[in-house]
This record gives sequence, C-alpha cells and structure tokens, in this order.
Amino acid sequence: MDILEIIAKKRDKHELSKKEIEYFVREYTAGNITDYQAAALVMAIYINGMTIEETTNLTLAMAYSGDVLDLSSVGNVVDKHSTGGIGDKITLILMPIVAELGVKVAKMSGRGLGFTGGTKDKLEAIPGYRTEIGIEEFKENVKKVGISLIGQTLNLAPADKKLYALRDSINCTANIPLISSSIMSKKIAAGANKIVLDVTCGSGAFMKNIKEAEELSKTMINIGKLANKETVCIITNMDQPLGKMVGNNLEVIEAIEALKGNIQEDVKNVVLELGAYILKLDGKGNNIEENKKIIEEIIKNGKAYNKFEELVKNQGGDISYIQDINKFEKAKYIVPVIAKKCGYIEKLNAEEVGKIAVNLGAGRIRKEDNIEYSVGIELLKKVGDSVVQGETLAYIHANDEEKGTKAVEELFELYKISEKRANKIPDILKIII
Amino acid sequence: MDILEIIAKKRDKHELSKKEIEYFVREYTAGNITDYQAAALVMAIYINGMTIEETTNLTLAMAYSGDVLDLSSVGNVVDKHSTGGIGDKITLILMPIVAELGVKVAKMSGRGLGFTGGTKDKLEAIPGYRTEIGIEEFKENVKKVGISLIGQTLNLAPADKKLYALRDSINCTANIPLISSSIMSKKIAAGANKIVLDVTCGSGAFMKNIKEAEELSKTMINIGKLANKETVCIITNMDQPLGKMVGNNLEVIEAIEALKGNIQEDVKNVVLELGAYILKLDGKGNNIEENKKIIEEIIKNGKAYNKFEELVKNQGGDISYIQDINKFEKAKYIVPVIAKKCGYIEKLNAEEVGKIAVNLGAGRIRKEDNIEYSVGIELLKKVGDSVVQGETLAYIHANDEEKGTKAVEELFELYKISEKRANKIPDILKIII
Repeated sequence: MDILEIIAKKRDKHELSKKEIEYFVREYTAGNITDYQAAALVMAIYINGMTIEETTNLTLAMAYSGDVLDLSSVGNVVDKHSTGGIGDKITLILMPIVAELGVKVAKMSGRGLGFTGGTKDKLEAIPGYRTEIGIEEFKENVKKVGISLIGQTLNLAPADKKLYALRDSINCTANIPLISSSIMSKKIAAGANKIVLDVTCGSGAFMKNIKEAEELSKTMINIGKLANKETVCIITNMDQPLGKMVGNNLEVIEAIEALKGNIQEDVKNVVLELGAYILKLDGKGNNIEENKKIIEEIIKNGKAYNKFEELVKNQGGDISYIQDINKFEKAKYIVPVIAKKCGYIEKLNAEEVGKIAVNLGAGRIRKEDNIEYSVGIELLKKVGDSVVQGETLAYIHANDEEKGTKAVEELFELYKISEKRANKIPDILKIII
Repeated sequence: MDILEIIAKKRDKHELSKKEIEYFVREYTAGNITDYQAAALVMAIYINGMTIEETTNLTLAMAYSGDVLDLSSVGNVVDKHSTGGIGDKITLILMPIVAELGVKVAKMSGRGLGFTGGTKDKLEAIPGYRTEIGIEEFKENVKKVGISLIGQTLNLAPADKKLYALRDSINCTANIPLISSSIMSKKIAAGANKIVLDVTCGSGAFMKNIKEAEELSKTMINIGKLANKETVCIITNMDQPLGKMVGNNLEVIEAIEALKGNIQEDVKNVVLELGAYILKLDGKGNNIEENKKIIEEIIKNGKAYNKFEELVKNQGGDISYIQDINKFEKAKYIVPVIAKKCGYIEKLNAEEVGKIAVNLGAGRIRKEDNIEYSVGIELLKKVGDSVVQGETLAYIHANDEEKGTKAVEELFELYKISEKRANKIPDILKIII
C-alpha cells in the first residue's frame, strides 16, 4: 500500500477501503506519512466526501490508534458528549442526576479551546478537585460512588488529536465525516457502550443550521450502528448562550444552583431531554416523559445535589465551596451592561459572547494559555425577554478594568433589541434516534 | 491576508484574487506558509480548478519569485520548450538550425528526471561542453555565435521548484492549471519574448490523450496572451519514442547525424513544424510551408551542422567528437532484441521504453543519481514497420550484463507485433495558435 495511491483515489472521488484507511491512520500516527501528505488527503476528503462505511472505518481506526479504555469491570457505561457551546454546564448538572438514578458515570472531558468552554476547566474551578487521576482510581471512584468526572488522562485516539490539529491549521474543520469520526473515535476509545450526543446548533456551535446538525447526527448514529454502540442525538439550540452564566466559577455556581432546584428554563429542558434518553439507553425506562418526571423529582428532593457533593468530595474537592457558593473567588470588577431603549431581546450571538468571555480571560486562544476562573459574563436577559430603558441586561465579571470596559461595550452591541415581541427560541430542536 | 482564508476560498470553489495568489507564492517561497498548508491548497486547486486569470496570476507570481533573466541586450528571443518525452533530442537539432537562420537562441535546459530525458544531460555527454556558465558569458555567446544552450544556472522560479516537488509528493502532478503555470513561469523567468511549445501526447508524455493535450495547450496560449508572450503549441506524438535512439551519447549521435542530413522521419517532421513556427514568431516568414523548405535546405547545405559545431566549440566542447561520432564512448555490451514472429509493429509504449533506459543507467530515479552516458536503446523497428522472424528489432546498449539481459527481455515484451498491417502514427497531432 502507498499513500500516493490513497491520495489519488480520494482525489478522484473513489471510495477508500478499510485497509487503506487503517494504513493511513496507522502510518500517519507513527510519523511515516508526512503532514503535507495527510493535508492533501484531508482536503480531498473535505471536498469529495466519504461514505458512511469510510467514515466508520476512519472512526474505528482512530479510536484504536491509542489506548482504549476497558470499563467492563464498572458495568454498562452510557457516555454523554456535547459538540460544544457557550455556557454549556450540562455535564456538571446532568451526570450527578443520572448517577443518582443508577447509571454508571465514568466520563473524561477536555479543556476549552477557542470560543467554547471545556468541562475539565470547570471542574478545576472547584478548589482541590483532582481531574488528573489514574485509571484504576477512576474506575474505583465509579464503583464507590457511581460517578467520576475527570480529564483525559489516557492517550486516547492520538490519531484524532494529530488529525484535528492538522485540520485546524488547513481550515478543514467544518466537515461532517471529519467531525463525526473525531467525536465518535474519542467516545469509543473512552469505553462507552452507548452514547447520548448533544448536537449543538446555531451561532455558537460548529453546526450553524439545523440541516447540518441533522446530517452530522445521522452520520454519528450510523457510525454508532456500524460500530455497535447505540447512539442518540439531541439537537439543541446554541444560537444564544445556554443558561445564565459564561465563565468557569460562574458556571460551576450556576450548576450548583441548578442542582439545588434553581434552574434556568433552557438548561432544564436540555438536562431533562438528555437525561431521559440516558435513562432509556441504560434500560431504566422507555417512557421519555416518565423519565423526565423522575429527573425533576430527583432534583427537587435534593438527592441529585447530594450526589454532586459526593462526587466532588470523592475527587478531593473542597465541598465547603459547593455548600456555600459565596466562597468562590469573585472577579475584581462586576460591571452592568445597561439597556438604552425599551423592547424585546431579539438576538444574542453565542459565538460572540464566547469570544468576549475568552478575551476577559475565561478561555484560551492558544492551548498553552492560562485561564482566570473568576471572570465571565452573567446574562440577566435572553432572547424573548422584554427590557426597559435603564434596566440591566447583563454583568461583566472582569479582573482588568480596561478589558471589562471593552467587554461591556461589546456585549452591549451584541444585544439586538427590537420593538416587536420576539419569540423565545426552542431549546430542543430535534431528536434523532 | 491569511492563508486559512485563501485555502477556504479555493476549498469552496471560489476564485482567488491576484493579491491572494501573490501572497501565497511569496509567503510559501519564503517559508512562512507551511508545506501542509500549501498541500491543502494545491489539492483544492487540483479538484476545484482555476480560471485562466488565476492560472496566469499563479504563473506570473512564480515567474517573478526569483531571478528573471533580462535578454534585452541580446535581442528578441523565441524560446522552445517540450513537455517531455522519450528520445526527444529536438532541441539539439532544431536550435542550431534556427540560429543559423538568424533567430537568437539563448536557452536554458534542465536535467532528466524519472522516465524522461533532459537536454542538459545530453549536452554534457559531449566532452568539455560547459553547461554551467555565468549569465554574462551566456549572453556574450549568443551575441558572438547566435546561440548558447546551457543548464539552469540562475535561481529561476524557485516557487515553481518548491511547488513542483510538493505536487510530486502528494500526487497532484497531472493537473492542467498546475502544469501550465509551472511550464510558463519558467519560460517567462528565462527571458523569452515568444514561446513555441512542443506539447507531447501519448504513453510517454504527461498528457495521455489529445483532449488533455489540447486543453493544456489552450491554457498555455491563454497565459501567454495575458502575460504578453506570444505562444504557439504544437501537439506531437509521444506514444512511442521519438527517433531511433534513447540514451545520452546515443541521442547526441542521432542529433549529429540528423544535422548531417541523415534524419529519422518523425524527428524531421517535428523539427520542421516547430522550426517553421519559430521562424514565423521571430518575423522571418509567415508561410509555414516555405519556412519548412528553408529549414530542409539549411540542413542539406551543411550550414545547420556547422552552426552546431560552432556552438559546441564556443561552449568548450571537443568538436572532434562531433566530427567523428565513433569517438563517443560505447557501452560494453550491445545486444540485439530479436523478433520471434513475422508481422507489423503495432505498439511500443514510450514510457516503458524510458523506464528500461533509466534502469540501464541512462536516467535518474532520484535527483542525486549519476547517469551513464554510453548506455541506452537503439530502435531499428518502430510502429507501422514490418518485421520478419529472426530480424533485429532493437539493440540494448548496456554496461552491466545482467541489466542488459533484463532490458532485452523487457524490450522484447514491449514490442507488440500484429499480423494485420499497422498504421504509422502521425507525428504532428495538432497545432494550436
């Protein structure tokens, strides 16, 4: 086999065989195929596409390019994954809930990069919380308290890591076969048996419209079928940020509040929908509406919150912060963004909100950047809300006065206020099974 | 400007602006754009194509990426270029002819690589001939004797050199915008005012069929128009090797013989056609048939041969070799390839003949390989010729017995002999102005 022949085949719109895809992934990971040869192949894939068989073969080859976590000693594992967004703290709320309901939760999460946040950063906002533990301790934690949320400690899908960085540097990120194989390879390597995917859609997501999100969902479900990992996709709205808070400490606080019952409507809808399907996939009940009621009850009776406290304690985190959210460090400056006219919030571009948060220090532009846990954005008004002149739209939490002032101006500009009544955007756009 | 935006534009089938193409060529040559980014862009160009404006802008940007030869002190220069072939010794015969007829010939040629030969190697087969002289001496030689044929001493079109190597390593060679801009950029950098292109077509050429050759020709003519360099393309047959000899000493000998009047029919047809158009472009006569007659006469009366001798002498070459071709070193083994049946030669794949010659040592597989001047192939029978059992089809000239035996077997297999009368292939397939 020869990389030049493989490139020519895809260049000329032919289908690559399983062996050819495996050869490419193996030799590229080993450094025997150069970055420029891989770049040529990736561009050919981007333009000429891949069949579902090719995409599945790419997924499996990448999944098995490094460590593959064996969670059989833990039991059946349902993994949850979001394709990324702004203010997305769903994992922190949802996973303790389903753990409390008997689902084994063994989940690894990444850091944030670019305008989207990452669960690992949020977990590390809790003083003492250990995200980097060994695999045996990870499994032990799941056996002991039913849940462990950590960072990616293993060498999971190194081929995907390498290919993802390459795609980024040649502008070949937004492509359905490449995105779906990237996501699914990591999930398979992380040992999931069944997968619930939160496919975000809108200005703050990779998928900008419902058509693309549906196509991505269908592709991932098909990969799941061929790879024998049952998969459900919930397409959720990411046209504006999710929930009220954007930023690490702020999102942890929002998650704790939510588990205590004080949950934002959009966050609640996403938690209920994803949670209901996780329960269903785990054999805990086929009736989605029933499952939602069970979840609402487990929040109400405080058991979900207790599970979260147990998780944090078990990972070495300081639960006094969970018990008293006022202990979290606050930003130096908390500045209001004031409405200058009356009307209805028509639009609040999620990606742009994410960029403001990154510029405040909440996220990373480069991998090696440090983040500031206390900074971020608190959104009081969201799409569909009415507002009167002089009312506070949001607060900017900043540690640097200049950055704070800039953020206030930018966020003010982002709030599109219309005189006509604006409709709330539905939180759940589509469920694809 | 940003390479990622440029990649995305071509990826999405948009036209690149002059500024974008110039930016890419400049920054890639300078090493500020990586090979993998260039590879992604080249693949996008390969698949999605380029307009004639884009191709011309790429040509000009590459032409001006390094030295551009100023031949204004020499006069109007008509350059000739072949897209490559097997047994192609046309430059050695044709350029002394047109020089004798008053056309200024200042021509740089490359070495052979892969299965095609290079004029520089053939010139160096003449003992003492200096192909690497300074530009001032080059120009002085043209002023003095009207002709100088040398190697590429200047840093001509370095962007093309870099891009060509990259294309080769990602299997993006056979693409009309990329081939045409590569050829034309070198010609423009080499200082040509007008260009006659020998576009080879068939098994021994990059262009395998007439349709591709026509498209390439039209593209180069259009580039010529936009770049203000009048261009004519002669599509010639390269389905079987050109002339009788393949190999360096052997081809020089064939060229000398041709200039002495003992010229193979196919070589003669190509020389007459190309020569007639060079004369026309140089303002020496608009009647192509008349021009051909003038060329035939200049061969017949010995003046073309004298000009060649003058050229060789002026470049430091030992003219006693030209005067007595028996002085050229001969290969150790000269082995006949014998026909085993009667019939007509139906096919003789040029590329495969080229590969046999390379394996004998006549060419290079890698740039750094040394060549053996004396080895090669002497073809007594060509397509359309009749042959009887026991007759000699060809001679293999080898310095290594084992290689020679292998070459005999391989060449024997290449000769397709049919019982039906096979037609001669026309030498000139089309002229595109």
